[in-house]
Amino acid sequence: MQALIIGAAGMIGGRLAASLARDPEPGLEALTLVDVVEPAAPAGAVPVTTGVLDLTDPAAVARRVAARPDVIVHLAAVVSGEAEADFEKGYAVNFDGARALFEAIRAQPGYRPRVIFASSIAVYGTPFPEPIPDDFHLTPLTSYGTQKAMSELLLADYSRRGFLDGIGLRLPTVCIRPGAPNKAASGFFSNILREPLAGKEAVLPVEDDVRHWHASPRAAVGFFRHAMRLDPARLGERRSLAMPGLSATVAEQIEALRRAAGERAVKLIRREPDPVIRRIVSGWATRIDASRALALGFVADASFDAIIAAHVEDELGGRIAL
Amino acid sequence: MQALIIGAAGMIGGRLAASLARDPEPGLEALTLVDVVEPAAPAGAVPVTTGVLDLTDPAAVARRVAARPDVIVHLAAVVSGEAEADFEKGYAVNFDGARALFEAIRAQPGYRPRVIFASSIAVYGTPFPEPIPDDFHLTPLTSYGTQKAMSELLLADYSRRGFLDGIGLRLPTVCIRPGAPNKAASGFFSNILREPLAGKEAVLPVEDDVRHWHASPRAAVGFFRHAMRLDPARLGERRSLAMPGLSATVAEQIEALRRAAGERAVKLIRREPDPVIRRIVSGWATRIDASRALALGFVADASFDAIIAAHVEDELGGRIAL
Repeated sequence: MQALIIGAAGMIGGRLAASLARDPEPGLEALTLVDVVEPAAPAGAVPVTTGVLDLTDPAAVARRVAARPDVIVHLAAVVSGEAEADFEKGYAVNFDGARALFEAIRAQPGYRPRVIFASSIAVYGTPFPEPIPDDFHLTPLTSYGTQKAMSELLLADYSRRGFLDGIGLRLPTVCIRPGAPNKAASGFFSNILREPLAGKEAVLPVEDDVRHWHASPRAAVGFFRHAMRLDPARLGERRSLAMPGLSATVAEQIEALRRAAGERAVKLIRREPDPVIRRIVSGWATRIDASRALALGFVADASFDAIIAAHVEDELGGRIAL
Repeated sequence: MQALIIGAAGMIGGRLAASLARDPEPGLEALTLVDVVEPAAPAGAVPVTTGVLDLTDPAAVARRVAARPDVIVHLAAVVSGEAEADFEKGYAVNFDGARALFEAIRAQPGYRPRVIFASSIAVYGTPFPEPIPDDFHLTPLTSYGTQKAMSELLLADYSRRGFLDGIGLRLPTVCIRPGAPNKAASGFFSNILREPLAGKEAVLPVEDDVRHWHASPRAAVGFFRHAMRLDPARLGERRSLAMPGLSATVAEQIEALRRAAGERAVKLIRREPDPVIRRIVSGWATRIDASRALALGFVADASFDAIIAAHVEDELGGRIAL
């Protein structure tokens, strides 16, 4: 089995590649990693090739697909904030890029790869019930969510037609997101854990009772690996599904931080209410009934304690700097 | 108010144009009718211009939009069967055509027309509950339904961004469809009424207990006219909605035919069960909870008796040929 990961320089894509190189799925013989910037090649038991791919160049997409990988994981995207700020770029990368990939696959006669597509809970838009059921309509309130929902529809139609064998994963917000704090409206969910765990201050712009839907980087990697193993016949015609997550309030996150790193860590969280962020966050999903994904064997994080422990192990070398 | 109807040579488009020319909405000053073939110009109180427009030619679409009509009714589409048979043509007309229209509108600075988009109950796919609620997810099982659902998502995003003021109408199956019997799988719902009313035989390929979701041509014209009057602010961010219809079994249709035209008409229906058509029809919506559209003032047909009476009046000059 040959696998191609598009978006392998990204946070999830890079971790998925490293995980697969270190501990390959049975039968995985080669891994090709591409992104708009050349991804790093992780060490491991599987031969890794890296390269550059611009999804807005259909000829370049077609050249990559001509190698006919058995599995294509498509994680590349312009993030939500950028897709909202740059209307044309968002559609060009997030929608036309996905379509160019699916079209390049369709153009190869007798080829029907598994395509694992990274969608997002941004396909949902308020008002919605809590939890959001599996059969709730997609009413995105961002261009990013619109582009993901449109790509999901294409993925299902191309699968139904037999051009590819698609699975779309609606990812929860990834927490604890590693790296430096960023300006994404959702950034604080990670910042308030990651920064104190590293002995640094973090800003909390919302109230403690704000609830959200989370998955750790480890869980997200697990979703993609599980999708590589899953028999797609079990999906039927409904090719995209909400991934299981952990529904938690900010207060619950902080309690887990207290258990892991003590009161000194919690004191590093500075409350600076920001009504703009509060308003944005109030439109986000807080709880999703991911029964379908759970029945198919996708696994969520067990608790925020487990999420913190995994972060300490994977990102901090097992040591809390307090 | 200037209105542009795209798809005005079609069955609903032509009837809408005739209706508006004869009995204009308040403030309607001019009507432009376009289609892939030049539409007929109906007589009436409003000046009518006709022309040819190929939706797969973005420059031609842009030239039409440059006249900045206040209302654009977009009804043009490759029908379901053709979109399934010709994958590329279906996407080119039904999806890329709608996108070209929305993009041409976005390219006009300071322009924000009302866009009334003809969607379809083909956006739904089995299994679904009965009735299908307003917040049920769209899982189309045809390329046509996929193209309509993707266009609905674009319509909502372009509306949210302020480029246009969109309303998407998910039309029931139109019955009694005038004209000659056609090979569409849904054709028999109309054939078994229209043909006997004209003294001709009709074939019924399914059982009498098959239930479906209908709207007369008059009701469909009424939906578009109501959408021209509706305050779009009442729609919020959810710009597309299921139109109210009449849920009826084939047996109920036949009883209405019996009341209108007697036993002689009913005897013209020949039962020739066709398992292929039965299977296709079994995947279609039978009943939709159109509460939202009803609350917004859209009006369904009262009964199949009313549908037959309207057909006799509009298409048969008030006379049943039996």
